Amino acid sequence: MTSDRVLASELSTRVGHDVTIAGWLHRKRQLKAVTFLIVRDATGLAQVVLSGPAAPSAAELTEETPLSVTGTVAASARAPGGAEIVQPVITALSEPAEPPPFDLYRPVVTASLPTVLDHAPTSLRHPRLRAGFAISAASVAGFRAALDAAGFTEIHTPKIVGSATESGANVFGLDYFGRPAFLAQSPQFYKQAMVGVFERVYETGPVFRAEPHDTARHLAQYVSLDAELGFISGQQDVMAVLRQALAGMVAAVARRAGPEADLLGVRLPEVPAEIPQIHFAQAQDLIAREAGWDPRGEPDLSPADERFLGDWALREHGSEFCFVTGYPMAKRPFYTQHDPGRPGYSVSFDLLFRGLELVTGGQRLHRHRDYLAALAARGEDPADYASYLEMFRHGMPPHGGFAIGLERWTARLTGALNIRAVTLFPRDLHRLAP
Amino acid sequence: MTSDRVLASELSTRVGHDVTIAGWLHRKRQLKAVTFLIVRDATGLAQVVLSGPAAPSAAELTEETPLSVTGTVAASARAPGGAEIVQPVITALSEPAEPPPFDLYRPVVTASLPTVLDHAPTSLRHPRLRAGFAISAASVAGFRAALDAAGFTEIHTPKIVGSATESGANVFGLDYFGRPAFLAQSPQFYKQAMVGVFERVYETGPVFRAEPHDTARHLAQYVSLDAELGFISGQQDVMAVLRQALAGMVAAVARRAGPEADLLGVRLPEVPAEIPQIHFAQAQDLIAREAGWDPRGEPDLSPADERFLGDWALREHGSEFCFVTGYPMAKRPFYTQHDPGRPGYSVSFDLLFRGLELVTGGQRLHRHRDYLAALAARGEDPADYASYLEMFRHGMPPHGGFAIGLERWTARLTGALNIRAVTLFPRDLHRLAP
Repeated sequence: MTSDRVLASELSTRVGHDVTIAGWLHRKRQLKAVTFLIVRDATGLAQVVLSGPAAPSAAELTEETPLSVTGTVAASARAPGGAEIVQPVITALSEPAEPPPFDLYRPVVTASLPTVLDHAPTSLRHPRLRAGFAISAASVAGFRAALDAAGFTEIHTPKIVGSATESGANVFGLDYFGRPAFLAQSPQFYKQAMVGVFERVYETGPVFRAEPHDTARHLAQYVSLDAELGFISGQQDVMAVLRQALAGMVAAVARRAGPEADLLGVRLPEVPAEIPQIHFAQAQDLIAREAGWDPRGEPDLSPADERFLGDWALREHGSEFCFVTGYPMAKRPFYTQHDPGRPGYSVSFDLLFRGLELVTGGQRLHRHRDYLAALAARGEDPADYASYLEMFRHGMPPHGGFAIGLERWTARLTGALNIRAVTLFPRDLHRLAP
Repeated sequence: MTSDRVLASELSTRVGHDVTIAGWLHRKRQLKAVTFLIVRDATGLAQVVLSGPAAPSAAELTEETPLSVTGTVAASARAPGGAEIVQPVITALSEPAEPPPFDLYRPVVTASLPTVLDHAPTSLRHPRLRAGFAISAASVAGFRAALDAAGFTEIHTPKIVGSATESGANVFGLDYFGRPAFLAQSPQFYKQAMVGVFERVYETGPVFRAEPHDTARHLAQYVSLDAELGFISGQQDVMAVLRQALAGMVAAVARRAGPEADLLGVRLPEVPAEIPQIHFAQAQDLIAREAGWDPRGEPDLSPADERFLGDWALREHGSEFCFVTGYPMAKRPFYTQHDPGRPGYSVSFDLLFRGLELVTGGQRLHRHRDYLAALAARGEDPADYASYLEMFRHGMPPHGGFAIGLERWTARLTGALNIRAVTLFPRDLHRLAP
């Protein structure tokens, strides 16, 4: 089958030929003298026209039954793609399918999100639900291609760790051969270590947060697109790599998931050569001056602040992306570089995309003595970090990095209101299956 | 720094120019009138020659200290790459490094494997230890490129699952918001589900096994290169895709990690257009006839059987790869297709590489009623598999797939005697850090 099979997207190039297609029976419409079958495969829809008797009888062909169809391709203005199959011989490839939990052939998804998620293995066959995951796959491929071209090496780090070091909260505990262990909340420590080995590294893998919040943007597992690079002269080098990665992601969506982006009405952003930047303190000043509220004194940006800055970047700079730099140290992890010229502020950034935080990054400490001082300042015992701290004793260069949340990116790109709609089999406070 | 920096591998193309390099001080040799510094960066080694006083004084430059060097490139037959930097200005980029746990500059690794692993963030800087991970990264890139070209879509599936369905044994338990959960032993059920969505899917991600065995080939976490494809006419379609994936991996190692493969003396295998195949029963007959033992009646191949078959494939077919098909059902998971013409045997395969099992795959059941029968035959309750079984009620085509163990591949390729040597921060019965 595989070798001779023609895909739905290729049908219009085979007019006049005998071909075999395969897929799921997406829709059956029985009129008086004729039956139309729409067959769905990975590339789209193909129309099959039956007039008169066909075997197996069309009555047995229930929607979602996998089948193959051999017949002659005829041009047809009414058919998807401009061609259809006539005089078909139909072979069912499995037993007749039971009706799916909701109609997969309707252009719009008629089920609620919980129903979609409860039946995800079937639901995701719907072209609109499937599309987000084609966009995700393309985005990850674009991320890797951009970083490969910039001399990065891919790594695969442990997801089971011995201590909940990065942040004691929101961590999943595990029984590891009778010892306590934890699921990694990020590959942070490992990607820093691998800067010592490859200088520039990335990882595209799962991270885990025991998020007690039941919101539209929190997940217990998500895909983190992580990068870290050494021998930087400052965080601008990190931000420049992030810009390359984003440009690669956008280009890959256009190239590899164009039809899916079109189906969802996705408007791809332009990634400007220079993404506008604003310092955290200046951003708060700007908001206090121009918005209807005064955020000064707050250690972080609120969602309203982020929306305001997203609008500001678009209005003033024509950019849907915006860097906010210099977040207060109070809200950044202990390994973040302090800004020597601005006490209390860090050398770190968030990237806002369409008014929402998409990426967090920054420059890290690289001197062993700075780590000891940072831990002491937070009242933490360096012994708890012994395995992490060792690399800094043996010479680490100035370095930094960032992490992009894949599902957050896809959600923002597709306009999904709930991140679960673009998460493959999401895990949250309530959901552990399918 | 990043923008103007020249890499060690580029030095010989800049003879006569002033350049800046950066890296770690790999080795310092102080002679009477001259000091040689060897600087290591991601691309290799560069020699720097100091005659007379230099600042900071060479005495402060300890090995592994990150530094940058600006100077003039001169041709030199004795230097690595045929060029060296003279009249250097040296800038330390961090505090002086403490001596690493063993000498990183010696061509051979002088430390034991436990010492290497205990200090992995530093150890892996050694060019010979680092090389295996460059080969791994290249292999994964080659796997993805081959499958992308064959119309596959990448997926990212949950690693936290609600039931230890695939195999009750060797599973890590987890506290999931007060409920029991488990770490996924494979993406098997999810990749099958996604065949229903994209027809052809792959995942390159971590899988978890609570392996109680303390051997040179068992890990608690490893990277699984998983693929699954639908609308197959039989397992030969699956094996053909696996052949493409392997060819892509070998080509990518040659293209992306050639120097590292050379450093380790890796001889890359040829992937023949047709990998030799032998049925399990025939393989046992062959061994009984030609080897000094009789494996007939055993439900699986022993390591000695695998070595014999590896030798046989090389001798008879000139191939370092060999498919063994039709393993007894007793040793295959319940979702494996039975061979209707040969009761007790399955439609499945292992791929041996240099006499060791590297890949397991096969055709899966696709009819709902066959799953019910398979579970009943093993005395299992279909209710325990409800979320998995649902997709088969709604129409799944004939499909199959395979999983390659990345670390096992790299170990076999590089001749590593212990899989931990090519596993990034390995996890096993005893090891949970670094």
